[in-house]
Amino acid sequence: MALRARALYDFNSENPGEISVKENEIVTLYCEQDIEGWLEGVNSRGERGLFPASYVEILKNTAPSYNNNISAGDGYQASKYANISGSGYDTSYNTQPIDENLSKTSAPSFTSYPVPVQHPPSYQPSQASDDDWDDEWDDSSTVADEPGVIGGSFPDYEGNGPSTYRMSTSSMPRGGTAQQAKSSATVSRNLNRFSTFVKSGGEAFVLGEASGFVKDGDKICVVMGQYGPEWQENPYPFVCSIDDPTKQTKFKGMKSYVAYKLTPTHTQSNVSRRYKHFDWLYTRLVEKFPVISVPHIPEKQATGRFEEDFISKRRKGLIWWMNHMTSHPVLARCDVFQHFLTCSSTDEKAWKQGKRKAEKDEMVGANFFLTISTPAVPLDLQDVESKIDGFKAFTKKMDDSVVQVNTTFNEFARKQIAGFKKEYQKVGLSFKILGQAFELDQQQFSVGLNHAIAYTAEAYDTVGEYFAEQPRQDLDPVMDLLALYQGHLANYPDIIHVQKGALTKVKESQKHVDEGKMEGASADGICERCNIISFATLAEIHHFHQIRVRDFKAQMQHFLREQIGFFQKITTKLEEALQKRRSR
Amino acid sequence: MALRARALYDFNSENPGEISVKENEIVTLYCEQDIEGWLEGVNSRGERGLFPASYVEILKNTAPSYNNNISAGDGYQASKYANISGSGYDTSYNTQPIDENLSKTSAPSFTSYPVPVQHPPSYQPSQASDDDWDDEWDDSSTVADEPGVIGGSFPDYEGNGPSTYRMSTSSMPRGGTAQQAKSSATVSRNLNRFSTFVKSGGEAFVLGEASGFVKDGDKICVVMGQYGPEWQENPYPFVCSIDDPTKQTKFKGMKSYVAYKLTPTHTQSNVSRRYKHFDWLYTRLVEKFPVISVPHIPEKQATGRFEEDFISKRRKGLIWWMNHMTSHPVLARCDVFQHFLTCSSTDEKAWKQGKRKAEKDEMVGANFFLTISTPAVPLDLQDVESKIDGFKAFTKKMDDSVVQVNTTFNEFARKQIAGFKKEYQKVGLSFKILGQAFELDQQQFSVGLNHAIAYTAEAYDTVGEYFAEQPRQDLDPVMDLLALYQGHLANYPDIIHVQKGALTKVKESQKHVDEGKMEGASADGICERCNIISFATLAEIHHFHQIRVRDFKAQMQHFLREQIGFFQKITTKLEEALQKRRSR
Repeated sequence: MALRARALYDFNSENPGEISVKENEIVTLYCEQDIEGWLEGVNSRGERGLFPASYVEILKNTAPSYNNNISAGDGYQASKYANISGSGYDTSYNTQPIDENLSKTSAPSFTSYPVPVQHPPSYQPSQASDDDWDDEWDDSSTVADEPGVIGGSFPDYEGNGPSTYRMSTSSMPRGGTAQQAKSSATVSRNLNRFSTFVKSGGEAFVLGEASGFVKDGDKICVVMGQYGPEWQENPYPFVCSIDDPTKQTKFKGMKSYVAYKLTPTHTQSNVSRRYKHFDWLYTRLVEKFPVISVPHIPEKQATGRFEEDFISKRRKGLIWWMNHMTSHPVLARCDVFQHFLTCSSTDEKAWKQGKRKAEKDEMVGANFFLTISTPAVPLDLQDVESKIDGFKAFTKKMDDSVVQVNTTFNEFARKQIAGFKKEYQKVGLSFKILGQAFELDQQQFSVGLNHAIAYTAEAYDTVGEYFAEQPRQDLDPVMDLLALYQGHLANYPDIIHVQKGALTKVKESQKHVDEGKMEGASADGICERCNIISFATLAEIHHFHQIRVRDFKAQMQHFLREQIGFFQKITTKLEEALQKRRSR
Repeated sequence: MALRARALYDFNSENPGEISVKENEIVTLYCEQDIEGWLEGVNSRGERGLFPASYVEILKNTAPSYNNNISAGDGYQASKYANISGSGYDTSYNTQPIDENLSKTSAPSFTSYPVPVQHPPSYQPSQASDDDWDDEWDDSSTVADEPGVIGGSFPDYEGNGPSTYRMSTSSMPRGGTAQQAKSSATVSRNLNRFSTFVKSGGEAFVLGEASGFVKDGDKICVVMGQYGPEWQENPYPFVCSIDDPTKQTKFKGMKSYVAYKLTPTHTQSNVSRRYKHFDWLYTRLVEKFPVISVPHIPEKQATGRFEEDFISKRRKGLIWWMNHMTSHPVLARCDVFQHFLTCSSTDEKAWKQGKRKAEKDEMVGANFFLTISTPAVPLDLQDVESKIDGFKAFTKKMDDSVVQVNTTFNEFARKQIAGFKKEYQKVGLSFKILGQAFELDQQQFSVGLNHAIAYTAEAYDTVGEYFAEQPRQDLDPVMDLLALYQGHLANYPDIIHVQKGALTKVKESQKHVDEGKMEGASADGICERCNIISFATLAEIHHFHQIRVRDFKAQMQHFLREQIGFFQKITTKLEEALQKRRSR
């Protein structure tokens, strides 16, 4: 008897090699074992191909299974689902209402004019449709890396970020390293185990529970600069280009992916990386650095992944991301990023070694704070609090304005591509029609005018095209920048939350000392550790302002130059038309 | 007992000094004699002022009277209605359905963006609402000059013009001189007494019924030019400026009008003329010249006549009109036009003398053709027919394209004034909001960017204003030109009709000669006279092409120059913003 499965949801094939199935449709399977979340089979119309394993339930006297129990059977793939890293999500995340998840992933994308329709419209889009998840790795990875984990992309556990924040659906939330340490401190613990302060390891660190061996190379310095605490500059600055996005295939051409060529200036040798490598790296970084705003990688996209526009757009997003990575004194130097940038694409062994090392890195979360060394003079906590509050207000206002600029630019781009183009081309067309009428008169004194009108008609048609092409040159780059900053702005509530949590602990401990419930030395320790978090937070805020001013200055100049060039191009075109007219 | 009247229609006052009345409302009159079509009285709400005499019937045991019998009573005004010129309309015109009249007068105006609403919405708008009819003249004038004559502005008796032709509501139709001559010819007469061929006097002339004494000064020459028959050039070319539209009042300020200063270059002394003088002149010219396309004067407008925009627009229309008048070799030289241009505004006697002379001119209509002298070699009639047919096709196609250009430009102007402006100002606003967010950060390295963004915001706001102001500079002048040409294009079907009518008579007469029903000499006479009409028609067509090429060349150049200047202005503004950014 053939192995069969029943479709739980509609799935519409989007790429070669996939087949569509309807809810309740019975499909015949070749094998019950999925290949990285995909099953191969024949649907009721006799079409053979792949479809997402999670979209069907296998009919063999088992209860309906939605998610990763599909892969619970035996086989060569089983190990990867079994080997769940300790740093994975608390399973209680799955109790989050699905609605919230949907509302986050379907937030409007500001970098493309039409809001991309998520496909398929279920709560597991990444598994079914983003081939970046077609993992050729068979070594262990975290649950968050795996398809089919609901809630794998919750951007904000407490819902305390502004709802306008756009989160990459692939965002690995901070807090993967929440330490369930046994408490021995006298300061009360936060009862909310999902609080960022707890999950980031901030609480554990402040309470003195973090411990680890800090190598010299891991030391991260905060120094006092002209404007306050700063990250010590990277003594070996470098940048990294991202070029040649190339479509590659596997599974006998049934599944495809895009690889990019990365060339860091400090090694000058290029490596090939896929989106999923970026995604893996991003996850590591978020896990490791609790008070650093890790730039978001470009969003996943379900459909049209191999269209030139999308590839070009994603590449631009990755370039921006890379720019922010290499600009950051701490992120640029960290081991996992260096591994990503420098490990040869062909040396699989070295790659896996570095990968495992990064995944087993102990200096993440709470322990990260151990690596920070600060100036000797402690900060004034009241001053810190006021600076943090000021920054909080800044991010809120900047986020609002970025949303507004995005909306306006989106609309403006749409108008230029459609309306403006149409209007100028209609002017061109009406001149053309007038010229055609005039051409019925072929007397010698009319010919010059007729030619000139025909040329003017063409000129306006061209001007219409100019308008349609322009947003790509000026509005799109600004929107790309804004998208990256929206990611940063979405990070800051958590970063601020960690610092504020530490500050609260200081106040509590001082109160306990006053009440005689705690020893002064313990309270001093808490205060010192809070001081470290504060230094790091202020350094990060300073870095943010610096790159913000740098980026916006450059981008606004680019925007204006492009606009000037655009209007000059129109002027030139019309001057040609006028010359045409005069020369006759 | 007070003199009373009952309102026949609603009248809504539009200007100071007027009062509104409702249909069936009883008004008390101060005097039953109207002042140039207006009565003074008190309405049921106790308001005192003027209202149109034709809107009420006086209640004094007389039958309801609608029109000019209002003025049939005794009094100082009575004479002007009694003195009806013989060249006036056949009263049977009044049998034309009112609908047709309305449909003509409510044709969309292409020179203004909103279609002007005719006010009041009755079939007598000119009397009730256009103060240009507030005639201070008390000497005789033609019926067509008078208010209250229904059908006084029929543009096309046969309805044979394309329905897209826009006719000035003030158009004096050609054919006011229809001659009811007793026929003695053997060629059949056109049974349609409203045919343009008949009304223009073309038929009478071809049939040899026109007669009059042609003074040397009245001689109009057609010569053979490079491209065929041409009007002999005006040996004393001149132009005439129209300046200083000034609002003036009468009736103790209760009624107002606008006077223009006209300065012809050949006299260098200026005269003051009102719209109604132009209107009177136009009527004379249409009456006199059957195969010349008299440029239409700008349309009447019921409301907002004293608004600056309207006055400026009308002045521009009159300037175009004057340009076409002085450019025309025949029109520029004719007596009535010279009288209009040169007679002192203060010498009422001379003015009236010239006016009467013009109204009694015998060399109009059929007799006009007597004044034409042509080259000795007759035209090839088949060649003429083909040229005329070609021109007919040309006018049709040009008219269609002019309608299209007008529609497009109207829409384009509207878009720039509303949509484009809004889009650029929204960009400015979003920069402003972003700048305001950034200003929360006042660190030294941020200040330059903040200023630059604020300046860019202002620049885009200004660019929005540029877009809104621009159509007035480039689209409006083109539309003004098109409006004038729409008037010419509306004239040509009648002109062509006259020539074709003459040609038909030639064919008929030749047939009659073949059949022995007519003497060869009679047929030769018809052919000779048709030859004169053909020369005149071809000369007029040539003139049309010449001024068309001249006007469109100039206007297209103006349009392109304005557009170039406009885009350069934007470029300059954005360059300023970029400099601002760099200098910081």
